[in-house]
Amino acid sequence: MKKYGFGVDIGGTTCKIGLFETTGQLVEKWEIPTDTCEGGKNILPDIASSLQGKMAERKIGKEELEGIGIGLPGPVQPDGSVPLCVNLGWKNMNIPEKMGELMAGIPVKAGNDANVAALGEMWQGGGKGCKSLVMVTLGTGVGGGIIIDEKIVSGAHGAGGEIGHITVNPHESLPCNCGRKGCLEQYCSATGIARLAREALAGEHGSSLLDSAEEISAKTVFDAYKEKDKLAGEIVDKFARILGRTLSNIACVADPEVFVIGGGVSKAGEVLVQAVEKYFKESAFPSCADTKFALASLGNDAGMYGCVRLVLE
Amino acid sequence: MKKYGFGVDIGGTTCKIGLFETTGQLVEKWEIPTDTCEGGKNILPDIASSLQGKMAERKIGKEELEGIGIGLPGPVQPDGSVPLCVNLGWKNMNIPEKMGELMAGIPVKAGNDANVAALGEMWQGGGKGCKSLVMVTLGTGVGGGIIIDEKIVSGAHGAGGEIGHITVNPHESLPCNCGRKGCLEQYCSATGIARLAREALAGEHGSSLLDSAEEISAKTVFDAYKEKDKLAGEIVDKFARILGRTLSNIACVADPEVFVIGGGVSKAGEVLVQAVEKYFKESAFPSCADTKFALASLGNDAGMYGCVRLVLE
Repeated sequence: MKKYGFGVDIGGTTCKIGLFETTGQLVEKWEIPTDTCEGGKNILPDIASSLQGKMAERKIGKEELEGIGIGLPGPVQPDGSVPLCVNLGWKNMNIPEKMGELMAGIPVKAGNDANVAALGEMWQGGGKGCKSLVMVTLGTGVGGGIIIDEKIVSGAHGAGGEIGHITVNPHESLPCNCGRKGCLEQYCSATGIARLAREALAGEHGSSLLDSAEEISAKTVFDAYKEKDKLAGEIVDKFARILGRTLSNIACVADPEVFVIGGGVSKAGEVLVQAVEKYFKESAFPSCADTKFALASLGNDAGMYGCVRLVLE
Repeated sequence: MKKYGFGVDIGGTTCKIGLFETTGQLVEKWEIPTDTCEGGKNILPDIASSLQGKMAERKIGKEELEGIGIGLPGPVQPDGSVPLCVNLGWKNMNIPEKMGELMAGIPVKAGNDANVAALGEMWQGGGKGCKSLVMVTLGTGVGGGIIIDEKIVSGAHGAGGEIGHITVNPHESLPCNCGRKGCLEQYCSATGIARLAREALAGEHGSSLLDSAEEISAKTVFDAYKEKDKLAGEIVDKFARILGRTLSNIACVADPEVFVIGGGVSKAGEVLVQAVEKYFKESAFPSCADTKFALASLGNDAGMYGCVRLVLE
């Protein structure tokens, strides 16, 4: 194993770049803007010149680099090609090939951003020491990533780990962003929790949440929950019941060693994990009732970590 | 690759044994009784002497054997050890070690019976040509097996692919065999379908199913369905809705290339697959709506096939 690797997590606005030792130690991280103009044709060249600049600055030779891992917001084929990535403007882009040319043949691998984040949490985060995990990212939506035997489960159609779109309520009347109705993320994302709260507040009196009803959010709900507000307790209970039961069903499919909970909503911390774990245990198939739960610990860096881990395979 | 392999599917009553060419061709199959007395101590020696007899009979030398694969009705650890197998009377049995001793060091691998059946269907059955699949076995219960990247997903607690115990109805009042309530197999197994039928028949007039109400079964339901019986249509529709929706949720986790439907109930044939596929398409996450469906084609031999495939890895 060579000494260094680069992890590059490409987002629609910025690219997060990290120089790592292949032991898992982050040496330095920085960001560059993502230039999505003209079909995103500058994105990889911009990244390449940033990496070359860093190599020159730190006097790191090509022969010291194990490889470059790249994460991006869209489906990635097993060979690292991207049929379509709307957020970056890419069509039919073969990343290892294109980036390899720009970087004098240094090995390059690519993966979906949610999946590499899961791999990063397995390598150096909340799932460290485990070989299989399901990552649940509670943000604006609900994302997911599944790792089995230390490998990402991308799926035959790029939908591996799309757990936010598991149908949990076939009777839902409002549509999800995906066009279907009753998806997990309609209840358990930040926006979903705010919605549960608004519904609970309709006609309610005596909750501290009423003071902030105008700008209610997952954060105000969990803050009130920590202060023992009764209504917040009911909202969190509903959220935890839906998520805990869904994870117990996922355990009957993938049966991971650990569920790692991340994303903005997870900043609520251990109280959130405990609430979800309680319902998980109640509804889990007996042999997996003791599946571990952990908070994600790498935050927005998880993707960079996972990108580096990709090139160590 | 050597020329031959043995596949041994151990059941509580008989062991199905197959001699295969490693190309996937079944050369000969036979059965021996499973002797579960005294903690099942004779099971592996009985199998070993049957295999040795066959090798002598056909003049197959040890050097022509790639290995021996063994399937059994219980959880198997990644190293092929079995902590507990109630049906066979085994406790803390390391199969590759024990069987390797009995067979002069020929390589031995072991796996759970439902999982090796899924692997067999991938290799030479309904999922031939695919690298990932979810097998759904509709029998007395509902079993499952998940293959990703040509490998079995056993799970961290042996519950990988236990899809019969996904909770589909949290409001169910009757218990499942697993002790929980509302599991998939309470509605979609042979017994589950018979139950749906009995419930539908209560107070009903004018269905041909009434003639056989005393001994109603999944088979009588599907037979009446093929004759366009209206009530049978409603029962099959309910079964297909529950199963199709559940498979669409599984697709958001494992996203296989194909769902392979097997087990006694699947003898109803293409009409069953079509009914389930219709609801799957309706409820699937858009990118996996075109996931293929196929009938299992190896029947009770699937386990033997998968056992041989295990030793080819």
